[in-house]
Amino acid sequence: MQTSKTRTMLFRRKDLLGLAGLSREEIQHILTTAASFKEISTRSIKKVPTLRGKTVITLFYEPSTRTRTSFEIAAKRLSADTVNLSIAASSVVKGETLIDTANNLEAMHPDIIVIRHACSGAPHLLAGRLKSSVVNAGDGLHEHPTQGLLDMLTVWEAKGRLDGLRVAIIGDIAHSRVARSNIHGFHTMGSQVVVAGPQTMLPPYLEALGVEVTYSLTEAVRQADVIMMLRLQLERQGQMFFSTLREYSRVFGLNQKHLALAKPDALVMHPGPLNRGVEISPEVADGIQSAILQQVTNGVAVRMAVLYLLSGGEQSGTAA
Amino acid sequence: MQTSKTRTMLFRRKDLLGLAGLSREEIQHILTTAASFKEISTRSIKKVPTLRGKTVITLFYEPSTRTRTSFEIAAKRLSADTVNLSIAASSVVKGETLIDTANNLEAMHPDIIVIRHACSGAPHLLAGRLKSSVVNAGDGLHEHPTQGLLDMLTVWEAKGRLDGLRVAIIGDIAHSRVARSNIHGFHTMGSQVVVAGPQTMLPPYLEALGVEVTYSLTEAVRQADVIMMLRLQLERQGQMFFSTLREYSRVFGLNQKHLALAKPDALVMHPGPLNRGVEISPEVADGIQSAILQQVTNGVAVRMAVLYLLSGGEQSGTAA
Amino acid sequence: MQTSKTRTMLFRRKDLLGLAGLSREEIQHILTTAASFKEISTRSIKKVPTLRGKTVITLFYEPSTRTRTSFEIAAKRLSADTVNLSIAASSVVKGETLIDTANNLEAMHPDIIVIRHACSGAPHLLAGRLKSSVVNAGDGLHEHPTQGLLDMLTVWEAKGRLDGLRVAIIGDIAHSRVARSNIHGFHTMGSQVVVAGPQTMLPPYLEALGVEVTYSLTEAVRQADVIMMLRLQLERQGQMFFSTLREYSRVFGLNQKHLALAKPDALVMHPGPLNRGVEISPEVADGIQSAILQQVTNGVAVRMAVLYLLSGGEQSGTAA
Repeated sequence: MQTSKTRTMLFRRKDLLGLAGLSREEIQHILTTAASFKEISTRSIKKVPTLRGKTVITLFYEPSTRTRTSFEIAAKRLSADTVNLSIAASSVVKGETLIDTANNLEAMHPDIIVIRHACSGAPHLLAGRLKSSVVNAGDGLHEHPTQGLLDMLTVWEAKGRLDGLRVAIIGDIAHSRVARSNIHGFHTMGSQVVVAGPQTMLPPYLEALGVEVTYSLTEAVRQADVIMMLRLQLERQGQMFFSTLREYSRVFGLNQKHLALAKPDALVMHPGPLNRGVEISPEVADGIQSAILQQVTNGVAVRMAVLYLLSGGEQSGTAA
Repeated sequence: MQTSKTRTMLFRRKDLLGLAGLSREEIQHILTTAASFKEISTRSIKKVPTLRGKTVITLFYEPSTRTRTSFEIAAKRLSADTVNLSIAASSVVKGETLIDTANNLEAMHPDIIVIRHACSGAPHLLAGRLKSSVVNAGDGLHEHPTQGLLDMLTVWEAKGRLDGLRVAIIGDIAHSRVARSNIHGFHTMGSQVVVAGPQTMLPPYLEALGVEVTYSLTEAVRQADVIMMLRLQLERQGQMFFSTLREYSRVFGLNQKHLALAKPDALVMHPGPLNRGVEISPEVADGIQSAILQQVTNGVAVRMAVLYLLSGGEQSGTAA
Repeated sequence: MQTSKTRTMLFRRKDLLGLAGLSREEIQHILTTAASFKEISTRSIKKVPTLRGKTVITLFYEPSTRTRTSFEIAAKRLSADTVNLSIAASSVVKGETLIDTANNLEAMHPDIIVIRHACSGAPHLLAGRLKSSVVNAGDGLHEHPTQGLLDMLTVWEAKGRLDGLRVAIIGDIAHSRVARSNIHGFHTMGSQVVVAGPQTMLPPYLEALGVEVTYSLTEAVRQADVIMMLRLQLERQGQMFFSTLREYSRVFGLNQKHLALAKPDALVMHPGPLNRGVEISPEVADGIQSAILQQVTNGVAVRMAVLYLLSGGEQSGTAA
């Protein structure tokens, strides 16, 4: 166990924008902190005064219930005040620029702004201009770092390590910020990442990241320690796609038979929401190897850790 | 007055799904608890620490301001943390199953989930699968138990008893979850329930419940202790109905003349929102016999009692 | 510095509906109180227990993120509980009257209702019927008093006085509740108000208020201490207008050249959201004379002061 002083030095950033660029020590430190926060949610009084008097604004330009709720619960369990802003695409049209909106929020002295935006890089734009901490809760096709962290926490808890594991990520890699954050994170932590998906859904940047690429689900899951299925974003694929939905499911949907190819204790993961029977069979989603609900539980813990560390962590407040 | 220990034994359920099946002792215990909580809302500092560190999620699949606000205020006056989820019908289409949504929320360790859903039985489905307490805030045409409880509290306060009272419920009984909860509740408490409405709006199950049925408003209100008018759900009736709206109002709208047929101290009630001049005349809605706003006030008290008792009541926390 | 007792006597109203009719002493007292609250937002723990156990409801019939957020943050920094109600125009149609909605909210024992409504006078209607305090957060074309107060606080901080200043307000005066509140407020405080805008955008009531009227931007800003640009409400002007948008901008948009005509230390203000390049050039909006973000910061402080004073101020609670 590290001392307070050492731990503080391990994560001294103003913002969390992505997992690319974070060091192994930084990621490990967030995970360790999250693990220590996890227990708070199981107490009878699920609340610590750590962030009392801090203001956390959630600024969501894309609809979300799951991620916004997870951040809101995390903030409240730390006693922070939360303010939710859901900005419909329609009001952006009439409205002001993202920077003006952000400057306005900043002028109300929040401590942390959690932003989701359809444009890649929107959180970075804000972070560079604001004194408040900025947390990327998903920016376009780019990153969703707290999702990556909660996935790593889930694997770390189950396997006791991340180093040397074989992590298969299956589906529409190209349009998945979840995949991208996980690729960066697991790679940094020493895991071997393999991806599989239809050729049109595999982005060109994968080889540069040291990722093993295949077009075959069975090849990817073979001997895997972790199988992470991505949500097929039906709304993104449009109507044309539905004619081949059954075909997609047949080729890239995970079922019990595939699972038998992986290591016997392989973990099945999915960022949700599930399309049952499309990218994952109900038997697998609800099976004993599924860690899908642990992922959700760990989401609150990871977000508590991130809010805490960005607020100054041990420097300014009382730890949990 | 009962001792703490005795009272706890009177309501030891995980969920509140409906008033059907609740015993007279259980209902009485909720009402007694609500009456004791009522005073908190009139204090200068309207807050007790009873549910500090508990998380209450409101999960509303139908739009609502009144009921959601009442639960939110109730939770906050008990110092619980509240998280509101309004799920538009549109997002359900793309989204996950109700059970997956609920499992996900459960994984964030809430203490109580308050759910409104257009499908009868949705809260029961969740309650059977979740460790969290589930409160039904209205499920389809089925039940709306906290509305029934607040109505009973209002009558109990005014009359000093529920046993032996004649309670008339007028309107679209068949499509009213409010009516159904009240029929079960008042019946259990020993009141005599009589309903009146157009033949098409009277459901077949009434006789089995021991309810007196009539097609005549005047017959129903005669010698009544309580007259409960239901909201005519104009949005449900559709356009066809509007041609006969005046006719409905003439036959089933409550006015001063009808009120004179009831007992001199009869109470006029309505779950809101009012269609003034349709099912109730403004004079009656605003008259001295109207308890409509007391119902709203009692709504907060009843919901405080329900949240408190489901959280373990005297077992786990400090009472108000 | 006044004593507690004297200060309380300076603002003893139940509601804040507009700046018309407020005395110089009352306005000064709100500004003094706001200035003393401002520091709370810069603390590490941005929270005082002043309004603990009070319930503040925001009731917004028009979409708003900025004003609602400012009130919500103000209430939370004072430890009040907040409940947000956004009522879409569509649900009003099916729903109940404004008075019934308000009576219902009142029955839940809130302390303060903050209301925004498209109809002028809506807050007054409520205030006359409810025991709760009512704050007008914008009613039709009528008033937006907290905006006027935050503007005056911003000028007072920068100039050390309001008396004798020349305040130019430019734009669509006729359709601006911001303009109207500022005209009343600055006039009462002894400032000289001059307005400029297209003839069709100047209302008839200006002369009666002692306001100097001109159709020329340059004439209005000449020797001004304060230049307040109004947002051109593009959504209100409709499509017809866009053909002359460039013309509007050329004649009534503020740029550096115009600014040079004002006093060297003239303050540039805008209530937001900005239409950059329409009513204000980016150089001016972001220039060193711009007080636009100070306005936003002062919005939280002014709303804290208003919530505090309406709650009884020094009479009932502990000051900050």
